[in-house]
Amino acid sequence: MKTNPGRFFEDYTLGETIVHAVPRTVSGGERALYHALYPARGALYSSDAFARGCGLPAAPMDDLIAFHVVFGKTVPDISLNAVANLGYAEGRWLAPVYAGDTLRSESTVIGLKENSNGKSGVVYVRTRGINQRDEAVLEYVRWVMVKKARLEAPAPAAVVPSLAPVVQPEALVLPEELDFSRYDFALAGERHRFADYAVGERIDHVDGVTVEEADHLMATRLWQNTSKVHFDVTQREDGRRLIYGGHVISLARALSFNGLANAQMIVALNGGAHANPCFAGDTVRAWSEVLDRAETATPGVGALRLRLVAVKDGAAPFGLKGADGKYLPEVLLDLDYWALVPV
Amino acid sequence: MKTNPGRFFEDYTLGETIVHAVPRTVSGGERALYHALYPARGALYSSDAFARGCGLPAAPMDDLIAFHVVFGKTVPDISLNAVANLGYAEGRWLAPVYAGDTLRSESTVIGLKENSNGKSGVVYVRTRGINQRDEAVLEYVRWVMVKKARLEAPAPAAVVPSLAPVVQPEALVLPEELDFSRYDFALAGERHRFADYAVGERIDHVDGVTVEEADHLMATRLWQNTSKVHFDVTQREDGRRLIYGGHVISLARALSFNGLANAQMIVALNGGAHANPCFAGDTVRAWSEVLDRAETATPGVGALRLRLVAVKDGAAPFGLKGADGKYLPEVLLDLDYWALVPV
Amino acid sequence: MKTNPGRFFEDYTLGETIVHAVPRTVSGGERALYHALYPARGALYSSDAFARGCGLPAAPMDDLIAFHVVFGKTVPDISLNAVANLGYAEGRWLAPVYAGDTLRSESTVIGLKENSNGKSGVVYVRTRGINQRDEAVLEYVRWVMVKKARLEAPAPAAVVPSLAPVVQPEALVLPEELDFSRYDFALAGERHRFADYAVGERIDHVDGVTVEEADHLMATRLWQNTSKVHFDVTQREDGRRLIYGGHVISLARALSFNGLANAQMIVALNGGAHANPCFAGDTVRAWSEVLDRAETATPGVGALRLRLVAVKDGAAPFGLKGADGKYLPEVLLDLDYWALVPV
Repeated sequence: MKTNPGRFFEDYTLGETIVHAVPRTVSGGERALYHALYPARGALYSSDAFARGCGLPAAPMDDLIAFHVVFGKTVPDISLNAVANLGYAEGRWLAPVYAGDTLRSESTVIGLKENSNGKSGVVYVRTRGINQRDEAVLEYVRWVMVKKARLEAPAPAAVVPSLAPVVQPEALVLPEELDFSRYDFALAGERHRFADYAVGERIDHVDGVTVEEADHLMATRLWQNTSKVHFDVTQREDGRRLIYGGHVISLARALSFNGLANAQMIVALNGGAHANPCFAGDTVRAWSEVLDRAETATPGVGALRLRLVAVKDGAAPFGLKGADGKYLPEVLLDLDYWALVPV
Repeated sequence: MKTNPGRFFEDYTLGETIVHAVPRTVSGGERALYHALYPARGALYSSDAFARGCGLPAAPMDDLIAFHVVFGKTVPDISLNAVANLGYAEGRWLAPVYAGDTLRSESTVIGLKENSNGKSGVVYVRTRGINQRDEAVLEYVRWVMVKKARLEAPAPAAVVPSLAPVVQPEALVLPEELDFSRYDFALAGERHRFADYAVGERIDHVDGVTVEEADHLMATRLWQNTSKVHFDVTQREDGRRLIYGGHVISLARALSFNGLANAQMIVALNGGAHANPCFAGDTVRAWSEVLDRAETATPGVGALRLRLVAVKDGAAPFGLKGADGKYLPEVLLDLDYWALVPV
Repeated sequence: MKTNPGRFFEDYTLGETIVHAVPRTVSGGERALYHALYPARGALYSSDAFARGCGLPAAPMDDLIAFHVVFGKTVPDISLNAVANLGYAEGRWLAPVYAGDTLRSESTVIGLKENSNGKSGVVYVRTRGINQRDEAVLEYVRWVMVKKARLEAPAPAAVVPSLAPVVQPEALVLPEELDFSRYDFALAGERHRFADYAVGERIDHVDGVTVEEADHLMATRLWQNTSKVHFDVTQREDGRRLIYGGHVISLARALSFNGLANAQMIVALNGGAHANPCFAGDTVRAWSEVLDRAETATPGVGALRLRLVAVKDGAAPFGLKGADGKYLPEVLLDLDYWALVPV
């Protein structure tokens, strides 16, 4: 067979590194589409002039463009036969991505654990996004539940990697040239600095977006994500196209501008759960909670650890989990990340 | 509160200048999206080679890209709590915008008049779009009706600016390097010159476009316009998303290519009314009327003052207003602008 | 009348060359949109780095971007009043198109034949796409049935051009610098080489895409195709917008990546039929058949002649025509082309 059936659980070997196909050069086109698909307004990513004022050579691609491009490449090898996207950890952005850069992805299998039912198992991979100078621009761990094709295949020795619950502030990588000393708060859109955010503070980002099929289809194609459930109505019994979880991440992050306009760069992904599926027609809103604050090695730059929650119609203010500890049905996303903020 | 509630009528002070946030660098991405979102075919904006044949260094961004980008930035400060977009005047394009340029916006409050009901008032602003060299690329006056949040706030002294009903031809700013002496009518798409258009002439632009939700959502996001009614179905009682008026302007202008292919550059906006709301599903058509003709200081370049009318399904040919002087219900837009045409 | 009514059958003269309007400069914006509108994954067109590894200066625009841009320009002059798009032949890509290139189109009328009913006729044109250096980048023959406006106009002498049923391998034009000696099969996505494809082999490309209105509207506008039936619901009695046939070509070609990831460059279009109309809501799939194999003058580069068939929901595996020799109702496209493959 010449087509790619995807890998099944028994096809993964601990320690192997998978080179993902289809490198991708990004340009002003990807940036413009990002602005058309999400209500993104971060000044650092919108304006070359603003980025230069922060020491960068030009406006980088949104950090989530890098994430989506790197992630999309992994789908044909990692999650084509996945039944669940279980988690993320130890994600770090290591270098900005600029127009003209070419990204490719590699994943190393760092854990395998067959489920007790013998029909599926959990695969842990550490994925790296790499640019045309062989520099890593992003790395993260993801684990997914994958079906077995041959149920008789023997279970591998169970290896569950030990993963940090949060990226330590010392491990955050900031662009060397980053300099917020001339940061223009008026052009950035808000006056709130690092000192203005307190641990425990919660922000309702107010705005909402009703999602169209075309929105998520275009976005998910743009990232060359090949998961069938996003594109083909015949793939689910309900005839609905499941929205790529990363689309909800970008949507929520963009909405969080309103209250977090100065949380400019995402530098780490501590964890994340796609709590409930999102479908076209849902009106998505977001709220954030400040989980932690940290100084960084770069003068004038602080880091906020933020919980970003996306919800849909009918959600109660700041609702997250029920008494049973499970996510409320209106919660779509619970993301834990570090962002850089001017001091 | 960290999020932006928008300004209310009592928050404006006569003479103050508001610096709008989120500067934006435009690229070939914005140009391509403009061509994907509107049936735009103006050769000067489509082809670097054609633009060079007209003396410009490259194809500029469509004049309405500049308008939308500059306008979009003003929304969070000017019209987030507006109940009506009342008018435009004294709009002039002052310099072409090219790929790589970064635009920001500033608005000066030039008029304030509280309504007799004491619940709202009219705010007049003169907005300037400025590029990365601090050159003004666009300026226009807009006035909107804005709600009061604190009804007890005292009414300001009423100041209604005196606005020109039309930008005088002498005030039109043409790019210095513009040269139509080698203008290629075949590549431009029509043979009609300045001399071929008579005052009073009306042109039915024939073509129609049925608007999709995704079209206007992507466009309006691309311009970083944050008005809630465009994106969120819960904002209006009828559950419909109101289409950004500027989307209708661009759609009508693009449709007007068929009959006005040589009306290349928009150089002034004399006035405009969003006569009725537009919604997805409407099939939009356009017609134009030649309101005036003027020579310019640049040899070989004439200016046409044009009325551009957008209508939807069911409109009678060249219908505009009823016997009562009100716009017919099928009329969406009545725009008055100056465009440059080869002599 | 200032608007373009399109040409009718009696308006064409054998041997005349029509210069089509609105040249177009392409950029990274068009490339990004192509990736957003189609699930395109060809590494040569996605990555500058990969393209450089194949001897090219950068990733070219997808070959079908060139086709659509060139084709789109011809619509106002060739097919605005066409009642049927009858066929393609002798299509050849002559030079890659890169970001920054400007394309224009010219068509020469090479055949005319009035139908026996006297109400329409068939027009044969040879169209050339030309870049800013006056180099031809693409040529193809297309024939369409066009209505007569003046039924009394005399029938021209019938001339039906003799067209090659297939472009001979010797006539294929390969970029001089193309070099597959360092071709990276892992990054390209599949290991199958020229030798792995046998004449008669058929490949089910597995994936499907359910088409949205916004997808084809944006694509068709991006190519500045002005055919009314694609955009305006009032143009057909059933109120549906007919999807541009080229949209289905691009969709099927992109889907064919899965099994033909190394069929990198399209170099010839031997023929093609839009077997049945496609509408939004259809879930489109594709299959291919290897019709022929040929060596080329470039060492390491082989050519595959491929049939690419697009089908919609309900199609039987590899179904094409019924016992009556007619296309099955689920078949949308039957395309015959040559593609380059590493040996």
